[in-house]
Amino acid sequence: MYTLLDKINSPNDLKKLNPDQLPQLAEEIRHKLLEVTSRHGGHIASNLGFVETSIALHYVFNSPEDQFVFDVSHQSYVHKLLTGRRDLFENIGSSGGISGFTSPSESEYDIFDIGHTATSISLASGLAKGRDLYERKYNVIAIIGDGSLSGGEAFEGLNFVATYNTNFIIIVNDNENSIDPNVGGLYSNLTKLRKSNGTNENNYFRALGFDYKYVEKGNNVLEMIAALKSAKDINHPIVIHIHTKKGKGYKYAEENPSAFHWAKPFDLTTGKGIPHKNVSVDNAVSYLTATLQFFDEELKNKNSVIVEPGAGIMSRYISPKFPKQYIDTGITEEHAVAFCSGIARNGGKPYLTIQSSFVQRAFDQIHQDLCLNNTPATLIVMSAGVNCFHDAHIGLFDIAMLSNIPNLVYMAPSDESECIKMLEFARDANFPTAIRQANFPSYAIRRKYEDISDIVVGKSEIIQQGEKIVLLGLGDYLYLAHQVADLFQELRGIKPTIVNPRFASHIDEELLLKLKGDNQIFVTFENGIIEGGFGQKIAGFLGKYGTKVLNFGAKKEFTDRIPLEEQKERYHLNPEQIIEDISKQLIDGKR
Amino acid sequence: MYTLLDKINSPNDLKKLNPDQLPQLAEEIRHKLLEVTSRHGGHIASNLGFVETSIALHYVFNSPEDQFVFDVSHQSYVHKLLTGRRDLFENIGSSGGISGFTSPSESEYDIFDIGHTATSISLASGLAKGRDLYERKYNVIAIIGDGSLSGGEAFEGLNFVATYNTNFIIIVNDNENSIDPNVGGLYSNLTKLRKSNGTNENNYFRALGFDYKYVEKGNNVLEMIAALKSAKDINHPIVIHIHTKKGKGYKYAEENPSAFHWAKPFDLTTGKGIPHKNVSVDNAVSYLTATLQFFDEELKNKNSVIVEPGAGIMSRYISPKFPKQYIDTGITEEHAVAFCSGIARNGGKPYLTIQSSFVQRAFDQIHQDLCLNNTPATLIVMSAGVNCFHDAHIGLFDIAMLSNIPNLVYMAPSDESECIKMLEFARDANFPTAIRQANFPSYAIRRKYEDISDIVVGKSEIIQQGEKIVLLGLGDYLYLAHQVADLFQELRGIKPTIVNPRFASHIDEELLLKLKGDNQIFVTFENGIIEGGFGQKIAGFLGKYGTKVLNFGAKKEFTDRIPLEEQKERYHLNPEQIIEDISKQLIDGKR
Repeated sequence: MYTLLDKINSPNDLKKLNPDQLPQLAEEIRHKLLEVTSRHGGHIASNLGFVETSIALHYVFNSPEDQFVFDVSHQSYVHKLLTGRRDLFENIGSSGGISGFTSPSESEYDIFDIGHTATSISLASGLAKGRDLYERKYNVIAIIGDGSLSGGEAFEGLNFVATYNTNFIIIVNDNENSIDPNVGGLYSNLTKLRKSNGTNENNYFRALGFDYKYVEKGNNVLEMIAALKSAKDINHPIVIHIHTKKGKGYKYAEENPSAFHWAKPFDLTTGKGIPHKNVSVDNAVSYLTATLQFFDEELKNKNSVIVEPGAGIMSRYISPKFPKQYIDTGITEEHAVAFCSGIARNGGKPYLTIQSSFVQRAFDQIHQDLCLNNTPATLIVMSAGVNCFHDAHIGLFDIAMLSNIPNLVYMAPSDESECIKMLEFARDANFPTAIRQANFPSYAIRRKYEDISDIVVGKSEIIQQGEKIVLLGLGDYLYLAHQVADLFQELRGIKPTIVNPRFASHIDEELLLKLKGDNQIFVTFENGIIEGGFGQKIAGFLGKYGTKVLNFGAKKEFTDRIPLEEQKERYHLNPEQIIEDISKQLIDGKR
Repeated sequence: MYTLLDKINSPNDLKKLNPDQLPQLAEEIRHKLLEVTSRHGGHIASNLGFVETSIALHYVFNSPEDQFVFDVSHQSYVHKLLTGRRDLFENIGSSGGISGFTSPSESEYDIFDIGHTATSISLASGLAKGRDLYERKYNVIAIIGDGSLSGGEAFEGLNFVATYNTNFIIIVNDNENSIDPNVGGLYSNLTKLRKSNGTNENNYFRALGFDYKYVEKGNNVLEMIAALKSAKDINHPIVIHIHTKKGKGYKYAEENPSAFHWAKPFDLTTGKGIPHKNVSVDNAVSYLTATLQFFDEELKNKNSVIVEPGAGIMSRYISPKFPKQYIDTGITEEHAVAFCSGIARNGGKPYLTIQSSFVQRAFDQIHQDLCLNNTPATLIVMSAGVNCFHDAHIGLFDIAMLSNIPNLVYMAPSDESECIKMLEFARDANFPTAIRQANFPSYAIRRKYEDISDIVVGKSEIIQQGEKIVLLGLGDYLYLAHQVADLFQELRGIKPTIVNPRFASHIDEELLLKLKGDNQIFVTFENGIIEGGFGQKIAGFLGKYGTKVLNFGAKKEFTDRIPLEEQKERYHLNPEQIIEDISKQLIDGKR
């Protein structure tokens, strides 16, 4: 069935094929992509559209000497298939399988670990500079999708590299789509370029000084080979703008490329998703549900808007219902934050929804445009906490980042009702706020909305009054504090005090001082790295009194698809481990 | 002497003048600018070039209803002179005087606190959205220099706002200069546009979909008025590209705009700087001197390069001597970091020099492109620590940011010799490193290079063996530890142990455990915010043992031109205050 593909163990094997065999190879690869991604899920539509270019790249260039840098690198599946990872490809993206992104530890054909967007041109420009420092001769090729071009770093890279007096090839893979349809003026220019077969006189790339070539049939492998051959060993920067079809060759992906940008396992025949069997999320807290419930009410105020940098989950929920109040800014985290600050300055109420691993792309804008200006925009930080994703998408760093920015009030709700309460607090605040929403999955001892006390900045709440031990569980880890308390009582007969700190950014000094007198140890739990985080603020404050403080959370490290249970074990986040650690430090005498 | 200017207490007074009086007003303002900046220093050249446009803006538009957003806002001096701050202008930029940047707390004519670059279009796009949400009608005007256009956020804003179906005016103030001459392909396009009087067929702004108008005589107030009038109340986005002369009207600034971008007080007749009398920096540690000494040797290796995002101090020192190994990437912090990672991946050795307050503009790239990839680039973080600058330029946040990123080794040298030692360590490392260089000014008990022990990641060194108290002084604050130790011995007869921690990112657990047994209290000193920083790592580690830890450093807050002594008083950073604070917690019994 994979007559040609099965023989390709390296790009050299590919080069042995005749050009007229390549369309068949493309079909085999497309089949393989669908067969594997339908089982495992993954980035589907972009890879389907990039089959022919990937073949052409390896047919024309000599990787790994010639270096490819894939933007985001979610479109590197075919590249992986062609570079000796065909067998490993069967489990791509899964724990234990190869990564769904390029990874130098996996293959010499992969130059960088990449998972964030708009970086490929800058990274590749450095490769080219390194090559030239050593006076070596080979090709450096940056591959970037049209969607990623809206990211500021991509522009910085383009602008910089345009003046290079050396070999540099940029492939702009224009499939007329970002994750969702593109946003911005640039895309009208790309449209004109496509419609004019690249001849439109106003040309974004030429304006920046690039040599430029347009390939209308980006899904024709022979045309792609001709185009790449013409650029090979070029002595200056060139943009090869190719037009491809996202989802090419699979009806459902072609019809709905957004849904197939990344998808869970699906039925090949119907295109419908298959429920995932391994992860039971019964009864898990859904901060999303709470947020949508809040938005349903809040967006009746027409001056409130939802802003997403690159269409995310809100495009599905908010956009159809409140089209005028949903704003996709394109893949532009920096712009999105400053934009929100401007809206807030003129009296609007912006809610910026963003994933934990991407919020750091706007650190300076949050710090300066938002917090220095103290404008009341609200960041909703989603997908936070320990997860089993790729390095670039773990949600562990936002607490250490956001809780150390002046003026920002960073809240972490423990359940849906408190989430709504905090959203209401953020709505009414006259300063910047952020709300942390953990996932993967989180649980809670749920409370009713009416039982939740009002939010006051820097004020924690005592959930259970106990003795000797104070457990402070931030956000979704309040549940962990509950679990530890229950087990402690069961095993040792001690009933710890449980505190809901509510804020990652502000500690309740008054309460800490009060509790300090009667308790021997304070234990903090946070679903993020310990260093720079919430628990260390508690340790720093209580340190001067010599009060014992134990911090639980994640280690400062990158993790790539490590199963949740393994990470929890590693970080001592299981109640049994926690109790053992606490017991070691607990003076068990009578007081 | 200021016949016209003295009558202008608001834009309304300006509007009473006849157009033919405005050139005289411009001359008076230019005179005033020079008179004041020659006394106080400040941003000179950009303001001299922007006199006529500032007058025209207030002559044509109705601020504060019409809203101006100045990029970086260092070019807002004339705007300030025309909006009721003429008297306060005498002390602009000084402590106690008005800010050298726009500041809403100072005037309703200032919309944002701004000091970082490339943000004006995004901020203004939010203002326009806020205006439209309330269905109000007025003009929103973003002002941006040609240099700032290289910043990614500026592109994100341009791309986004190009599709607006509403009033939005962008003034691109093209003075053919960033802080230094511009870098990037965009600038060849701006040159072509200038040379063709705006008619060049390839046009960066039109490619993005903007309406576009070119004004060659940007320093002609009547032409600027005509241009702005034609755009006033426009119903779509327009770019008005104006050509001005940086430093206009002052010979020395016209001849050397880089030197007069920002300058210390200078002699008006000669253009030469006047030494500042108030700040004595005799015998201060110069990390810069050490770094340049290191580079002198290191750059003999032609594969080592210095990278600066926007020409900074290295352009003056390195560029003339090693022109091929000095790379100004333009105002592009994100790109610069990824670029360095690429160079390092291909075997080059990049040193990125950047100011503390700007390093946060590349958080994601440091996190992902550099540290996830573990490439051995070195960040040299300059101007770190407590200073008396504007909010946007305080150097207090880098420790909390960089020390919580996996894989990054963040070192803080205590003196010049240790700085060189650390630079050599960074040179030889096969992982990412950063070196913190504090200023304003810092002192040290200097050691000879040959007396400094080798750098080992996570290993601190004991500088003085003492009793009861352990003082850990990070980087330049090792000197503070010395001062505190000496005073403690003098006042209380106790000789504390002094530790040089060396690393902001890694604590020496072994040494801490060893010292814990014999000492009652650990005291940390860092020249940055306490929260999220080095001292809280120590408190977090020792917290579980109930060891007393006291953290000294800055508060998590923005400060605007607060005198150094006042800040040190506020943060309890004077030795007398520290000793009092320690004594409160010290159990003074015999052991």
